[in-house]
Amino acid sequence: MKDHAQNIPALMAEIGARARAAAAELATASPERKHAALIAAAEALWSRRAEVQGANAEDMARGEQKGLSAAMLDRLRLDEGRIGSIVAALRAVAGQRDPVGDVIAEWDVASGLHIRRMRTPIGVVGVIYESRPNVTADAGALCLKSGNAVILRGGSESFHSSAALHACLVEGLRAAGLPEAAIQRVPTRDRAAVAEMLRMSECIDVIVPRGGKGLVGLVQREARVPVFAHLEGICHVYVDAAADPDTARAVALNAKTRRPGICGAAECLLVHRDAAALGQAIVDDLMAAGVEVYAEGLQGTRPATEEDWGKEFLDMRIAAKVVDSIDDGMAHIRHYGSGHTEAILTEDDAAAARFFAGLDSAILMHNASTQFADGGEFGMGAEIGIATGKLHARGPVGAEQLTSFKYLVTGQGTTRP
Amino acid sequence: MKDHAQNIPALMAEIGARARAAAAELATASPERKHAALIAAAEALWSRRAEVQGANAEDMARGEQKGLSAAMLDRLRLDEGRIGSIVAALRAVAGQRDPVGDVIAEWDVASGLHIRRMRTPIGVVGVIYESRPNVTADAGALCLKSGNAVILRGGSESFHSSAALHACLVEGLRAAGLPEAAIQRVPTRDRAAVAEMLRMSECIDVIVPRGGKGLVGLVQREARVPVFAHLEGICHVYVDAAADPDTARAVALNAKTRRPGICGAAECLLVHRDAAALGQAIVDDLMAAGVEVYAEGLQGTRPATEEDWGKEFLDMRIAAKVVDSIDDGMAHIRHYGSGHTEAILTEDDAAAARFFAGLDSAILMHNASTQFADGGEFGMGAEIGIATGKLHARGPVGAEQLTSFKYLVTGQGTTRP
Repeated sequence: MKDHAQNIPALMAEIGARARAAAAELATASPERKHAALIAAAEALWSRRAEVQGANAEDMARGEQKGLSAAMLDRLRLDEGRIGSIVAALRAVAGQRDPVGDVIAEWDVASGLHIRRMRTPIGVVGVIYESRPNVTADAGALCLKSGNAVILRGGSESFHSSAALHACLVEGLRAAGLPEAAIQRVPTRDRAAVAEMLRMSECIDVIVPRGGKGLVGLVQREARVPVFAHLEGICHVYVDAAADPDTARAVALNAKTRRPGICGAAECLLVHRDAAALGQAIVDDLMAAGVEVYAEGLQGTRPATEEDWGKEFLDMRIAAKVVDSIDDGMAHIRHYGSGHTEAILTEDDAAAARFFAGLDSAILMHNASTQFADGGEFGMGAEIGIATGKLHARGPVGAEQLTSFKYLVTGQGTTRP
Repeated sequence: MKDHAQNIPALMAEIGARARAAAAELATASPERKHAALIAAAEALWSRRAEVQGANAEDMARGEQKGLSAAMLDRLRLDEGRIGSIVAALRAVAGQRDPVGDVIAEWDVASGLHIRRMRTPIGVVGVIYESRPNVTADAGALCLKSGNAVILRGGSESFHSSAALHACLVEGLRAAGLPEAAIQRVPTRDRAAVAEMLRMSECIDVIVPRGGKGLVGLVQREARVPVFAHLEGICHVYVDAAADPDTARAVALNAKTRRPGICGAAECLLVHRDAAALGQAIVDDLMAAGVEVYAEGLQGTRPATEEDWGKEFLDMRIAAKVVDSIDDGMAHIRHYGSGHTEAILTEDDAAAARFFAGLDSAILMHNASTQFADGGEFGMGAEIGIATGKLHARGPVGAEQLTSFKYLVTGQGTTRP
């Protein structure tokens, strides 16, 4: 690549053109070749794990210096265990069925035509993400599996970690004889590259933005390219009047504390008035586990304020509130939620059905932890993220949702009357 | 509705708010009630057909005065036969399965969770279209069937016809006890309303723009709302070296002349060098049928110029060209096509497979007329149009493609390890 140190539009145009060319090659790449690239990338990552940890140490040192929160640093860290998980995810994606070329539906019509609907790659995917470096590998792998070229723009905090992971992916592509530009990384921390990506409608078919409020606003203002938004996860846990106390305490604690920094972590606890005593027990459990609870109608760390509702804490804090009814709870979720994941804890199946019908978040859970909002847990091998929009992709996005389709129609010299 | 004669933003904001409220009601409307509304609308339209033809006569008179082309006037005209077709389409949509609430997929995962993926409405759909008034009925019916509220913005040419058709749809909604705002029509010819719709991201979830070059440009510049583009249909017919002469002549003639004003009409004929004699016979057939042929390498009405390639004529004109190979033909299509529909005429299955694999248009046909690019012909009852984008909806868009989905997850107090 040429030297574009100061010229972001020229740099991005070159990356875009390379991606478009790679996408044309990838669209007809065999499943075996894509599989081989992913396995070779997994092997490269495991054999280079010390090098990757070294790059990550640079990022961690810079992050500590910049005063990143403990939760942010946790999201950033790559130890050998987490690298092992990334290697496993690469292998899991490799092992899944290749979706490209699948005939999704097939039928005959009265005119004599035979119609097939076949999966195709989308083309070029742009992924804009923040601190977690594993997204580099997951997004790269899923786009490759689905026959798409990808342009990865990670957060500046994970700059060196992402570069090291990306190098392993490229090694895999090279080993399998696939174009290296199938998985490209934007090699600059300059934020102008993000605005540029959002406008590259000639070269990018869809942008996947993963991040918080800052990115939401930028995307809403600037995007000319279609978007699969992967934005805030303001997940709610609603404790119904008919909740089982042991179930509710175990699930609510898990939903907040298992990993408070992931988008499926609970950010707000809603408690039916008739279950207020149980709600207090849950709040006590959370505080005992080190969670700060900002509460209304319950005794927490401090009273809740308006700013606490609809806030994505991503750390050991949670908002909590007593509501008068399931409908009040759902109204709160509709108003403050982000359409990501909400859970109801109840033994009353009619209440669960009401919650499932009345809310329109991507994922609704009954007696299960919101921490299950994850492509791996849904059986997709890995995920590029949890889509919070309603078009094309929604909820955990695996390889299948990164495809489009076309119709193949066969006649016998058939004309339309 | 208040009087917003001079204030388009206020008018559109009111329409948007009414649509959002109607969408919330529609999302849980029973299949029976939606069915009843469509049947009542069909009955209203048939009983008011004289009134609708009267409104259409006003539009036709204005169109003739404005000097619309014969093809445009044909697209605009509503005679009793065409009104009968619209009534039949309303009944066909009513008779189809209601997609909302369908469980598309269902599976168990090792953690003990049971996962269902269920169809939901998208919310509010905005449809921007040009002359054909039947779109008012088809789009209104399909959005209702799929549980979406819709805002219809028809072309100024079909202003009175659309108003008359819309009144019948509202009569159906009223008869079934559904909110009248489920199907709204923008009651002004002012083009500022279109720009406003393209930016109403709070109130509109997706815009369906159907039209030609002018609308394409406007959408690309202005849209802040996600778009299912239904843009130009620059359809190609490729006559392969191994084409059967009788099949090729019949299909090519039908593809251009059956109805030259629809988006599935052929706009360019490509002929393999080895089939040049057959190509000339097809050109002669076309000219005999009254088609002007702008040709390169063949004897047409006049020689083709660069402006003839990739042009959507929508009338009795076509471009034609001899190419050296199937690959040259496909390269021409990739360069000049709009990703709508292309047909190959050949007895060589390997050539057809090459054409199907090498092109990425929404619809690819083998030995069939491009005029079959139509939701009704695909068995969808009706269509809101032919989507030329690659995300969410592609090809003929019926009720099913106007839905989103959500995940419903059931556990037994399940926590994530």
